[in-house]
Amino acid sequence: MNIVVQNIERADEAVIEDLGECGVATVHEAQGRKGHMASCMRPIFPGARMAASAITALAPPGDNWMLHVAIEQVKEGDAVVLAPTSPNEDGYFGDLLATSLKARGGKGAVIETGVRDVREITEMGLPVWSKAIFAQGTIKETLGSVNVPIVCAGARVEPGDVIVADDDGVCVVRREDAPEVLEKARMRMAAEEEKRKRLAAGELSLDLYGMRKRLAEKGLKYV
Amino acid sequence: MNIVVQNIERADEAVIEDLGECGVATVHEAQGRKGHMASCMRPIFPGARMAASAITALAPPGDNWMLHVAIEQVKEGDAVVLAPTSPNEDGYFGDLLATSLKARGGKGAVIETGVRDVREITEMGLPVWSKAIFAQGTIKETLGSVNVPIVCAGARVEPGDVIVADDDGVCVVRREDAPEVLEKARMRMAAEEEKRKRLAAGELSLDLYGMRKRLAEKGLKYV
Amino acid sequence: MNIVVQNIERADEAVIEDLGECGVATVHEAQGRKGHMASCMRPIFPGARMAASAITALAPPGDNWMLHVAIEQVKEGDAVVLAPTSPNEDGYFGDLLATSLKARGGKGAVIETGVRDVREITEMGLPVWSKAIFAQGTIKETLGSVNVPIVCAGARVEPGDVIVADDDGVCVVRREDAPEVLEKARMRMAAEEEKRKRLAAGELSLDLYGMRKRLAEKGLKYV
Amino acid sequence: MNIVVQNIERADEAVIEDLGECGVATVHEAQGRKGHMASCMRPIFPGARMAASAITALAPPGDNWMLHVAIEQVKEGDAVVLAPTSPNEDGYFGDLLATSLKARGGKGAVIETGVRDVREITEMGLPVWSKAIFAQGTIKETLGSVNVPIVCAGARVEPGDVIVADDDGVCVVRREDAPEVLEKARMRMAAEEEKRKRLAAGELSLDLYGMRKRLAEKGLKYV
Amino acid sequence: MNIVVQNIERADEAVIEDLGECGVATVHEAQGRKGHMASCMRPIFPGARMAASAITALAPPGDNWMLHVAIEQVKEGDAVVLAPTSPNEDGYFGDLLATSLKARGGKGAVIETGVRDVREITEMGLPVWSKAIFAQGTIKETLGSVNVPIVCAGARVEPGDVIVADDDGVCVVRREDAPEVLEKARMRMAAEEEKRKRLAAGELSLDLYGMRKRLAEKGLKYV
Amino acid sequence: MNIVVQNIERADEAVIEDLGECGVATVHEAQGRKGHMASCMRPIFPGARMAASAITALAPPGDNWMLHVAIEQVKEGDAVVLAPTSPNEDGYFGDLLATSLKARGGKGAVIETGVRDVREITEMGLPVWSKAIFAQGTIKETLGSVNVPIVCAGARVEPGDVIVADDDGVCVVRREDAPEVLEKARMRMAAEEEKRKRLAAGELSLDLYGMRKRLAEKGLKYV
Repeated sequence: MNIVVQNIERADEAVIEDLGECGVATVHEAQGRKGHMASCMRPIFPGARMAASAITALAPPGDNWMLHVAIEQVKEGDAVVLAPTSPNEDGYFGDLLATSLKARGGKGAVIETGVRDVREITEMGLPVWSKAIFAQGTIKETLGSVNVPIVCAGARVEPGDVIVADDDGVCVVRREDAPEVLEKARMRMAAEEEKRKRLAAGELSLDLYGMRKRLAEKGLKYV
Repeated sequence: MNIVVQNIERADEAVIEDLGECGVATVHEAQGRKGHMASCMRPIFPGARMAASAITALAPPGDNWMLHVAIEQVKEGDAVVLAPTSPNEDGYFGDLLATSLKARGGKGAVIETGVRDVREITEMGLPVWSKAIFAQGTIKETLGSVNVPIVCAGARVEPGDVIVADDDGVCVVRREDAPEVLEKARMRMAAEEEKRKRLAAGELSLDLYGMRKRLAEKGLKYV
Repeated sequence: MNIVVQNIERADEAVIEDLGECGVATVHEAQGRKGHMASCMRPIFPGARMAASAITALAPPGDNWMLHVAIEQVKEGDAVVLAPTSPNEDGYFGDLLATSLKARGGKGAVIETGVRDVREITEMGLPVWSKAIFAQGTIKETLGSVNVPIVCAGARVEPGDVIVADDDGVCVVRREDAPEVLEKARMRMAAEEEKRKRLAAGELSLDLYGMRKRLAEKGLKYV
Repeated sequence: MNIVVQNIERADEAVIEDLGECGVATVHEAQGRKGHMASCMRPIFPGARMAASAITALAPPGDNWMLHVAIEQVKEGDAVVLAPTSPNEDGYFGDLLATSLKARGGKGAVIETGVRDVREITEMGLPVWSKAIFAQGTIKETLGSVNVPIVCAGARVEPGDVIVADDDGVCVVRREDAPEVLEKARMRMAAEEEKRKRLAAGELSLDLYGMRKRLAEKGLKYV
Repeated sequence: MNIVVQNIERADEAVIEDLGECGVATVHEAQGRKGHMASCMRPIFPGARMAASAITALAPPGDNWMLHVAIEQVKEGDAVVLAPTSPNEDGYFGDLLATSLKARGGKGAVIETGVRDVREITEMGLPVWSKAIFAQGTIKETLGSVNVPIVCAGARVEPGDVIVADDDGVCVVRREDAPEVLEKARMRMAAEEEKRKRLAAGELSLDLYGMRKRLAEKGLKYV
Repeated sequence: MNIVVQNIERADEAVIEDLGECGVATVHEAQGRKGHMASCMRPIFPGARMAASAITALAPPGDNWMLHVAIEQVKEGDAVVLAPTSPNEDGYFGDLLATSLKARGGKGAVIETGVRDVREITEMGLPVWSKAIFAQGTIKETLGSVNVPIVCAGARVEPGDVIVADDDGVCVVRREDAPEVLEKARMRMAAEEEKRKRLAAGELSLDLYGMRKRLAEKGLKYV
């Protein structure tokens, strides 16, 4: 019942990298406005940015043992994504785990509980998103699982899914959808570039998107 | 029922500017401790600061269409103030709307839902206060209204009211009260300057404000 | 019933200073994972850091009078720790109180309500932890007490207790336990330094802590 | 600045009564889905139901003095509606105020803070809606106002507005709109009665409302 | 992208019925302490109890159109389980939908938003669990999907999964696991019956479960 | 460090009983408006009522082992009061523990986490106050302590303190203060009885308490 899945598939490195360049808002839109974790998941420092393959961990409240187990499964380019089995905000992730994660080539972490040693992790430049910042200590007593499907902050995450995260929050892209989502994200970015220029020049989105007719049809009155 | 009011009155530009110099805490005190939006309204970057005339928008949950309509009503020196018709934290306001708002001379936005593209908006230097940061996409399907009185984060806002906002939050000044509030705010600032000096020199507020007698009368015992 | 206790004992200055160097997470662990205030207590600026003796204040909702009384009791190296008698987030602490606190040699403040003038206090470099940032004004009408035991954000604080606070939150060390906690904190830091090096070199915590056997005994399966 | 408005207009008694019969959900729909207080406002006992004219009160946190002032303004058929000047959940309203309110012909209360003596008020059968149940005591030190416009739980309330409240929550009807809202509410109820019968007989709302075509046009696929 | 899956598999009726007899706490334990929805999901009346096959619905914020679509898919013994695409508490489910659901043989509903007409639905005896009670109206504008896998209140639900719900909350059992979970639940109930008797007779669980030795080994001291 | 204190002092039985008759609101007032637990602590059924001596328990998140230990310390007339070492809402207390507690003569429980088996415990008539209702299971792995001072829902509780709880919430009376608090509570009740009659007869509290003069002095204007 408590398992560690050792061999998981990952999306293509270049695809992951490029999804990261697109950012959360664009990727989320490109895949049909799904996969966004709840807004309580915030970066521990401004400007944090990451795209990585998910190593998932499921752990009991107040017990971070499975994070230690998860880190062994981390390969270059991975991120640890942890969900507790019931709501908890203790400090599961701190500077020692961050040091180890970084040494293994990990890109960052998404922790649906608390994290601590925020100053040190910020100095390392390792991006972390969490529900809380809280130094309350955890134990290593009870098993969970690693690399099983989890629900993290309301979003389903399967091992190997692509995690895109930045100042706007955290978004999950199904591993198998990653190339298609990237393509759509790029198209969206290209389209937005054009729009941005026109809007910057003072054109109104009402005109740019041709919204006036539909607004009138729906009954909007200018008085 | 769904209307856009096109001609609204605004307070005097210089008065607005000067209220901004006074800041939220002073303005809020000067007008009798009213008009403060709930503390959930936070700036998306530290140091954000704004004083502007309110263009109000009322919009359904998950639908930011009315923001597009509102921006056409923005004149130099205005801010968009959005309230949803029911609680929502989706990303109503992002970098394209920010670009457009800025191009129209808008000073910033106060959004009682979520915002996204925080990195880009921060780079633009456009100050935004919101209830959440969340990239979740919105639609453009259902009408609301622009420049009608709204309740935003617990505070009544009428079109043309002065919005003063900084790191401390957001405060609303009735348009017609703006000159008087400014006068009181200036008196308060002058009085505080004197107090600040004496406190900085080590004088106690107990003495500065002559509080000791009243504390004793109320029954405070030093043991 | 409403009292100000004027003479309180404090921990040794050097011990307090050194506890501050250890930081919240280490101190909290060193004393057996207790004394941590709730995670809602956040610093008003990143990088805030403090270790100080507690001057406690208990005050009614929306009334900051007791902070003025408390500041007279502040000696070099103290911090004001305020709990309201019922939940409140008004702006009890602002730049004038901060100026006065600093002039008296105070190191900072821990306020389980709101604070305001965040920009100014940040510029002063005076660290403050609070439950909210909110400019809503307070009154000076009703007594509370100073230097009595309080419960602040879920943690018991007695006057003279050592308050250690940083980006991770706020932790309380019983005054009489301070030397012993410091000793344990130092041992912990020394031990961690060694671990950090080994983890940074790529060693796994599973091996470093010898966890594999116990994981297997508990039934963890690698698949 | 602190005032009690003594003469307010009220809607017609029979209209108020009939709005109460319609209930919150119907009235809220009939007036265009506005006027609903936040969902945190809950009745203190199941089955509570009320329609009444609003006597409004604005009071400082932790201070229920203005409720005493408000009760003098209560006439047969009124309800007291209280908003605090900043968020608070103390027990502003208890069995003595309930006794007095009832003796004056008051129909109930809507309190955006806490209430207490829930058992006794329930036994009296006096309906009360509040944000919290909390026995924490309040003081009588600081003025507010009575019968001024307030924002209560996110909804604007003017003195004399009609308050409709039941198990579903609390809804505010502008005094001057009451007759028209009632008319629309009745039409809605009549229409619903017919629909209810057909739905009870097994007809689908997809057919009853003719939704299938529009669903198909929007692109819904049955698989 | 917006689909309605029309043919789903369901667990055996008798198994579902019997899981309902076991109740949430027992079923949740029997399947290894998983599948529990967040504690915000509460029944709208005390004593509500249900076991049913899930018809899932995914819908935009403030838009209950997909509930109408979902009800057509309901067969005798089903329950509708709705998750919004972003957090929302509007009144998606009211007495008309309840009437229709009941007429189709539906057993109840689990709604991760608000519900309304609580009095009427209670009188019908149709059990409903929701995140909020709120009469705020919804629209029928935007598609979602029916009978796709969803995350509802933190729990993954697939169409045809067994929903067990009572005063303790809501628990999801994978359709294919239902028989095995039932078997374990029955064993648990049998074992508990015996324990209950011994505990009722005054025996201590410390003795019944033989905990004393392990407590001593872990270091518990009696003083 | 993990201890069970076996011999604690209790207040006089008759005093406890009589405090219970007074109820939470009266007792809380009588002791100077202190000792009230946070408003999140709610009874699991309406009409719950209790006065008892506290057997305190401190336990890790998600681990209810210490409740089993605590029950052995329960004597006739005691209640178990549990605080977690970090915020948690799992189901620590269910029908088996309730059965055992009742068999030992326990009067009820105050649990600052979740409880489950609400239907069964309600049928037993055993009053329980908790922060949540949640069936999520707990483990028995890690020690805490029994009969040490704790902070439960913001209130300090020492073993043997008197817990008064009813529909209004939970209040703690220091064991040594119990007789004096009872005396004051009785005086308060007597005084209230007289007031209740006069208010019921239509007299205004403004007159009963002689508030008019002070309201005028403070500047209240009737318009």
